[in-house]
Amino acid sequence: MENFIYGKNSVLELISSNMRSINRIILQKGLHSSPKIEKIIALAKNRGIAFQFLPKEQFQKYSEVPHQGVIAYVPPVEYTDFNDFLKKDKQYKRVIITDRIEDSYNMGSIIRTAVCAGFDAVIFPKRRNAMINAAAEKSSAGAVNHIDLIMADSLAAIIDKLKNAGFWVIAADINADDNYFEIDYCRMNFAIVLGSEKSGISSSLLKQADYRVKIPMLRNFDSLNVSNAASILMYEAVRQIMQKSPNIV
Amino acid sequence: MENFIYGKNSVLELISSNMRSINRIILQKGLHSSPKIEKIIALAKNRGIAFQFLPKEQFQKYSEVPHQGVIAYVPPVEYTDFNDFLKKDKQYKRVIITDRIEDSYNMGSIIRTAVCAGFDAVIFPKRRNAMINAAAEKSSAGAVNHIDLIMADSLAAIIDKLKNAGFWVIAADINADDNYFEIDYCRMNFAIVLGSEKSGISSSLLKQADYRVKIPMLRNFDSLNVSNAASILMYEAVRQIMQKSPNIV
Repeated sequence: MENFIYGKNSVLELISSNMRSINRIILQKGLHSSPKIEKIIALAKNRGIAFQFLPKEQFQKYSEVPHQGVIAYVPPVEYTDFNDFLKKDKQYKRVIITDRIEDSYNMGSIIRTAVCAGFDAVIFPKRRNAMINAAAEKSSAGAVNHIDLIMADSLAAIIDKLKNAGFWVIAADINADDNYFEIDYCRMNFAIVLGSEKSGISSSLLKQADYRVKIPMLRNFDSLNVSNAASILMYEAVRQIMQKSPNIV
Repeated sequence: MENFIYGKNSVLELISSNMRSINRIILQKGLHSSPKIEKIIALAKNRGIAFQFLPKEQFQKYSEVPHQGVIAYVPPVEYTDFNDFLKKDKQYKRVIITDRIEDSYNMGSIIRTAVCAGFDAVIFPKRRNAMINAAAEKSSAGAVNHIDLIMADSLAAIIDKLKNAGFWVIAADINADDNYFEIDYCRMNFAIVLGSEKSGISSSLLKQADYRVKIPMLRNFDSLNVSNAASILMYEAVRQIMQKSPNIV
C-alpha cells in the first residue's frame, strides 16, 4: 500500500532532502502559485518524478488532513523481520521499543531522532500503537526507510528474545530511582523502552527490564512529550559513547 | 484575549493536570457520550468550572482545528517584561531563545520541556516566530503559564542585554565545530539560541554568540526536529548541573 505525504512544506522538504523515493506528486488544479509550489515542480522535473494537476474533487478523500492541494505518493514503508535484524552483523546494536504510543506524530518524530542518533531499529507492537501512517511519515521527515522498523506481535516475546541475544533492556519510567544519565550505555547492545503518552510502560513489560531510569523533573510538572523524552535518552547514549568509546560509534 | 484548548484528549489532560486555570468549557450538543467526555464533565463539576452544551453552529468558527466538539477557554497567556526578568533574584538563570520558529506545535513543545528542565524563561521575537496560540497551548500541555515568556522587539538587542548582564550565549548551529556536550553549563547564567526549522539561526545572531555547538548526526541525515534538538540541549545542561553541582539545581 502506497503512503502519502501532504502539504506544501512537507512535500518540499521530502523532495529536497532526497531521503525517500517518490512515486508521483499530485497538485490541485487552480492552486495559487507560490515559490514553494514552483520549487516542488522544478525539483520534480529535475528528478524525473511524475506530477499532475487534478481537479479539487480528487482531493476529497484527503479532507481529513491539511494537504493544501499538494500530495506526494511514496512507496510503502518497509518493515524488517525481527530475526533478520538479530542476525545482522554489528558490534553493538541500539534499539528503541515503543509500547502503545498513541500519536503518529510522536512515532514519526521518534523514528527521525533514532536515525539521527544512529540507532539500529525501532520496534513497536502491531496493535495498540500508532501506525506509520501519513502523519508519522510527515513528522519523520523521510526517515522511515532509513532504519529497521520492526512490527511485533508481542513486545513481551521480543524483549525476551532481545535479552537472550545479549541486549540490556532499559525502561523509561517516571517512578524509577535512577536518573537516565546514571547508567552506562557503552559497549553493549541495549533497548530503550518508552511507554504511552498517558500511562507509561505496561507493568508486565516494566518487570522484564534490566534497568529503570527516569528523566528528572526540575519543576513540579511531570509531562515531557514522549518524543522529547526519547530524544533525551537516545542522545545521552550518543554522548557517553562519543565521549568514552568514540571508536565504536 | 482568551486562548482556547481543543479536542477531547487535550481538554481532559488540561483539566486533570490542574496546570492552567480554565474559564469555561463548551461541548457540542448531541455529542456522542464517551468515558472521556464524562470525565471532563465530572472534573468540571468537581472544580466548579462552568460548562455548557452549544449547538453545532457555534463551533463553526473553530472548523480549522480538530476540536471534536470540546473546547476549553483559558485566560490569555501572560508575558513577562524582559527587564523585570533580569531583575529577578536567582543565582543562575537559564534561558531559551527561539529565532523564527515557524511551527506553533514546536513552540509549545519547547516551552513544555523548558518547564520540565527548570529553565527560567523562553524568549522569542514578536514577529516572524510562531505565536503562543491554541496549537502551542495544546502541545505545551498547560506549561505556558509556568515559565517566564518574553516577547522581544529585537532578539539582537535582547542578546546584547543578556551578555551585558553576564549571560553566556550558546547558539545551536549544525555547522559548529564543538559538540553540545563539550561545553560547560554549570555555575553560569546562559541562553541557548535555537534557529528556525528551515534555515537555523540568522547569521547576525550567530555572530553574537559566545559559543556555537552542534548535535552530532550519526547517520547522513541532518534533520532533528527543533523541539527534540531543544530537549537534548536543555537536558545536557540539567545532567551536567545535577552531576557536577547538584546543590544549585
